[in-house]
Amino acid sequence: MTAVKALVFDVFGTLVDWHGSIKERAESIAARSGLTVDGGHLAVLWRNRYAPSMATVRSGERPWCNLDQLHRESLDEVLAELKLELPRPDREDLVAGWHELRPWPEVPASLRRFRAQRITSALSNGHVRLLVDLARYGKLEFDTILSAELARTYKPDAGVYQTAVRLLPALAAEVMLVACHEWDLTGAANAGLRTAHVARPGEWGPGHVAQPVSADLNAKDLADLADQFAAF
Amino acid sequence: MTAVKALVFDVFGTLVDWHGSIKERAESIAARSGLTVDGGHLAVLWRNRYAPSMATVRSGERPWCNLDQLHRESLDEVLAELKLELPRPDREDLVAGWHELRPWPEVPASLRRFRAQRITSALSNGHVRLLVDLARYGKLEFDTILSAELARTYKPDAGVYQTAVRLLPALAAEVMLVACHEWDLTGAANAGLRTAHVARPGEWGPGHVAQPVSADLNAKDLADLADQFAAF
Repeated sequence: MTAVKALVFDVFGTLVDWHGSIKERAESIAARSGLTVDGGHLAVLWRNRYAPSMATVRSGERPWCNLDQLHRESLDEVLAELKLELPRPDREDLVAGWHELRPWPEVPASLRRFRAQRITSALSNGHVRLLVDLARYGKLEFDTILSAELARTYKPDAGVYQTAVRLLPALAAEVMLVACHEWDLTGAANAGLRTAHVARPGEWGPGHVAQPVSADLNAKDLADLADQFAAF
Repeated sequence: MTAVKALVFDVFGTLVDWHGSIKERAESIAARSGLTVDGGHLAVLWRNRYAPSMATVRSGERPWCNLDQLHRESLDEVLAELKLELPRPDREDLVAGWHELRPWPEVPASLRRFRAQRITSALSNGHVRLLVDLARYGKLEFDTILSAELARTYKPDAGVYQTAVRLLPALAAEVMLVACHEWDLTGAANAGLRTAHVARPGEWGPGHVAQPVSADLNAKDLADLADQFAAF
């Protein structure tokens, strides 16, 4: 752990509760139009389209576009599937919901603990502005914000991790990605970074079971990971 | 001012006192080798080579390289001119000095005032890591750090300001550059940004006279500019 000079944090799921936040926002927006919706179901369907939508950018099939655009397109598909007629401003309000996601309870204080010792940054598939908005909303304090947008491709493309390493700059092995998703940790490890897995069993709402994940460090939440660093 | 959604801050001179900081560091490093040097003179000679060194990158004459590299090269020239034999580790220590520059006294608190109201970022010719180090050293709080490095050219190239506008993202007229240098404010205005000039008569040390500068707003320091925003 002493070799780790910078910690970069995945955001959706790892730091913020997208499922709970989008569920509430969807139900509140639908109610405004006199509709009822299972917001948790909508959030899951929407998030299911996340990886495939980014894959089209990563493969070069379509040029760079940010998550606001991808979320807007996939929301239309989800609403069509649910046969839910939402007016355009409500759809835009839902997409904006990804800029206002609640952090998991221990996250803001834990990020301050890491930052007191090491350089910290977000490293997310969210674009810079989305991450700035999330950080302001959730009081997430980083030294800077790094984003897939700077590489104009999406994680787990090695280019995203390499861009972070180039900008910090550091040796890849001096940078540790903190994330709850195996695909992200694997992408980082393939690019030579260290990895820390944070369990987020509640990420997809109730009833989902987290799988064990291989990483250099494993923590049950961010406070636990900060304790591990402090104890070293 | 209500149309301004994001404030981006020049750093060297505008937020931090490079002259005083480099002067002290040079004198202390020289003393270590039993040498005496006029640190203020060295700082001025070094800084004089700053614009010409970046011009070679901006023109495409040489590929992107960051300020650590440019500072290192120009330091060798300055020391040769001063006939000062400094060992290599001392030269590297001097170059590292640009990562540890004291902010002007009112800067940290003023940056917090701006950030409470608007998105804030650095926008400097310093590379990301240099700016992260300066921000940590001087307790400069921004929402994120934007750098010429992301555009791989230097201010006043329009590409640097346009990259900031694209990443925030905003209309150019919604972004205001805060800076003490006319060439920087002119570059920003040419790219469509709003501009605020902050006077830094002490930037080059004693005996330098600041010239009046044309900008959308003029302030005697950063606290004055924050007052102007608060009063609006």
